[in-house]
Amino acid sequence: MLDRWLLKILYRLIGEAPIRISLWNAVQVMPKHTMPVAHVRIRSRAALFRLMINPELYFGDAYSNGDIQLTGDLVTFLEYIYRGMARSKRNWLQKLIIHWQARPRHNSLKGSKENIHQHYDIGNKFYSLWLDNKMLYTCAYYPSPEEPLEQAQEEKMHHIARKLLLKPGETVVEAGCGWGSLALHLAKHYGVKVHAYNISHQQILHARQRAKEEGLDNLVTFIEDDYRNIQGKFDAFVSVGMLEHVGVNNYEELGAVIKRCLKEDGRGLIHSIGRNQPERMNAWIQRRIFPGAYPPTLREAMDIFEPVNFSVLDVENLRLHYALTLRHWLERFEENTDQVAEMFDEEFVRAWRLYLAGSVAAFSTGTMQLYQIVFAPGTSNQVPWTRDHVYRKEEEAEWKKVM
Amino acid sequence: MLDRWLLKILYRLIGEAPIRISLWNAVQVMPKHTMPVAHVRIRSRAALFRLMINPELYFGDAYSNGDIQLTGDLVTFLEYIYRGMARSKRNWLQKLIIHWQARPRHNSLKGSKENIHQHYDIGNKFYSLWLDNKMLYTCAYYPSPEEPLEQAQEEKMHHIARKLLLKPGETVVEAGCGWGSLALHLAKHYGVKVHAYNISHQQILHARQRAKEEGLDNLVTFIEDDYRNIQGKFDAFVSVGMLEHVGVNNYEELGAVIKRCLKEDGRGLIHSIGRNQPERMNAWIQRRIFPGAYPPTLREAMDIFEPVNFSVLDVENLRLHYALTLRHWLERFEENTDQVAEMFDEEFVRAWRLYLAGSVAAFSTGTMQLYQIVFAPGTSNQVPWTRDHVYRKEEEAEWKKVM
Repeated sequence: MLDRWLLKILYRLIGEAPIRISLWNAVQVMPKHTMPVAHVRIRSRAALFRLMINPELYFGDAYSNGDIQLTGDLVTFLEYIYRGMARSKRNWLQKLIIHWQARPRHNSLKGSKENIHQHYDIGNKFYSLWLDNKMLYTCAYYPSPEEPLEQAQEEKMHHIARKLLLKPGETVVEAGCGWGSLALHLAKHYGVKVHAYNISHQQILHARQRAKEEGLDNLVTFIEDDYRNIQGKFDAFVSVGMLEHVGVNNYEELGAVIKRCLKEDGRGLIHSIGRNQPERMNAWIQRRIFPGAYPPTLREAMDIFEPVNFSVLDVENLRLHYALTLRHWLERFEENTDQVAEMFDEEFVRAWRLYLAGSVAAFSTGTMQLYQIVFAPGTSNQVPWTRDHVYRKEEEAEWKKVM
Repeated sequence: MLDRWLLKILYRLIGEAPIRISLWNAVQVMPKHTMPVAHVRIRSRAALFRLMINPELYFGDAYSNGDIQLTGDLVTFLEYIYRGMARSKRNWLQKLIIHWQARPRHNSLKGSKENIHQHYDIGNKFYSLWLDNKMLYTCAYYPSPEEPLEQAQEEKMHHIARKLLLKPGETVVEAGCGWGSLALHLAKHYGVKVHAYNISHQQILHARQRAKEEGLDNLVTFIEDDYRNIQGKFDAFVSVGMLEHVGVNNYEELGAVIKRCLKEDGRGLIHSIGRNQPERMNAWIQRRIFPGAYPPTLREAMDIFEPVNFSVLDVENLRLHYALTLRHWLERFEENTDQVAEMFDEEFVRAWRLYLAGSVAAFSTGTMQLYQIVFAPGTSNQVPWTRDHVYRKEEEAEWKKVM
């Protein structure tokens, strides 16, 4: 009787999504008027109790360790959960628990280093199993949804370069450069000099190796240091997928850093996951996958630009592109789970499957956004007259001929 | 001695711009190392005293009534003043006075009506002397800076329609429709049905007349009412140059109105003057020209979208286009000052000259911004895949052939 009662509460909590949930003892709930899209098996009373206390955190753990099993399409299941949770109201106790457990770690210089290490230094080998061949671990740009991942990641880098109106000989600083692809791309295709910062040791080593191999180490300098220690003056600032790790409390400082390192007629672009409304990162992702991460709302992001009088010139929301990118990653990941299990174990495979599938669902349901923000010092009139140049492919071809 | 001392303080207040200021008694200040770009003559001690107390408010009044005379290019002069004021710090007393005097009038239903009446109901004849032939009183869109005003206003309307991805047969609601040009344009070129709201009696009469003349009164309905009273459900919401009159305290209500009147897969666009940092409207413009007006920062504008979980899809900053639009208006205004003086008087001519020239300077120096914000309900995936369609002119031609 208790089990049945708890199950009903749980069902209500997830917004009565069309899901069949069954317990270890054959007790179950089913959607009343539709076919279930997935079947969730909860395999012990302990697992059910933990789920009741904080479904957001313990669903991930239980799915990973096998206490919960799922048949059906994971992404579809999670899309229903996201939409259902958005409709259902949490009670104050659940909110409190979620809030407490999802406290992001402090992104001090040392804290950042630890947080970044935990996620990005798992091993380049692991990421190479499911990212594109150039290892871009951020939202791609698909001119059409049929585009393959490799091409879409190339397009993303061109899209950013065009938005920044880069000219040969200009200097660019990149904050958070991943495995170095964007820095190398900008040097190779746009003839700019790049200083690229990153605090992930593994990634910097990989990036330097590539710069040498591609003969671009005269144009690109990879620096293992925090963005707060950027030195010099540049024509452009670019940061792709780093803001998520900065923390709202540090936005004003980030703005001051950009102001310091950008020339008076410079341009900047920040590419980041975001939100429509402020919300803590999912507790399980925060704890198990991405410590210290927080996707801001546009309002929160203004803390970067407003205090230093920067003009926001262009904001583009590419959320559906990230859903598609993540689908591509998830497909490749599924094709390589044997190797991932060998490198780590089955629990790790399930955890990362859930993380990738959950991220698809977050972007496809509008729970998360992807913003590209172009900005410039408020006093500068050296800004693009229109955004035509971003979309005129012919002129780009002309440009490349000149190079 | 006192005069000389006050003059020096005044000079410092405007950031030591390269301007010659002389008093009624031959006392003067001159830039030390450059040629002055303008010569300002202050014609009485009373005028000087008033200027000291609040230059922002009394410069406008004194310029209008002739107590201050200026030779040299007014726009260039005002650009120096804007840049100079931004550099110099105001003291607390000046801030307090400016703050007090610039309090916007309350935009209640009745307050709005009075504020709008004061600005827009001066007379259609007056505006027709210096606006384009279709009477668009908002920032135009210039594919290139050489474009003439008439063409740029047409382009602006197409730009908005493309951003909204309007399809024939869809329904559009417009909040604040001016003299009706956009509503008529959308009906004519995109085959949509429009409900257009405005509380300016003069403008609505003019718009209805045009709808009849152009045979579009079957597609466009002009409604003399406040945006808060919008009725019905629409595929698209559009508002061009109204947000400035809404007031930050009413943004949440505006968001609720849009949510109520937009279909679940609808799109919206708001076009508005804005700021990089929050600041009161210039006191003189607030009092003499535009009562109740306030251009928000992007952060402040988020009060519209965040509470109702709208996704911001696209923000474009067209500030330099507004500087150019205003230059075109100012040129036409200068060509017709004789007629304006006949309709009103010389003081009115000087006041509006200052308003138009000051607005050019505000946009050209980055003191004001112009934002176009595209948005949609956060749960809708019926959003443009890229922004390519806004820039592909050929396809637009295809589209028109179909119509």
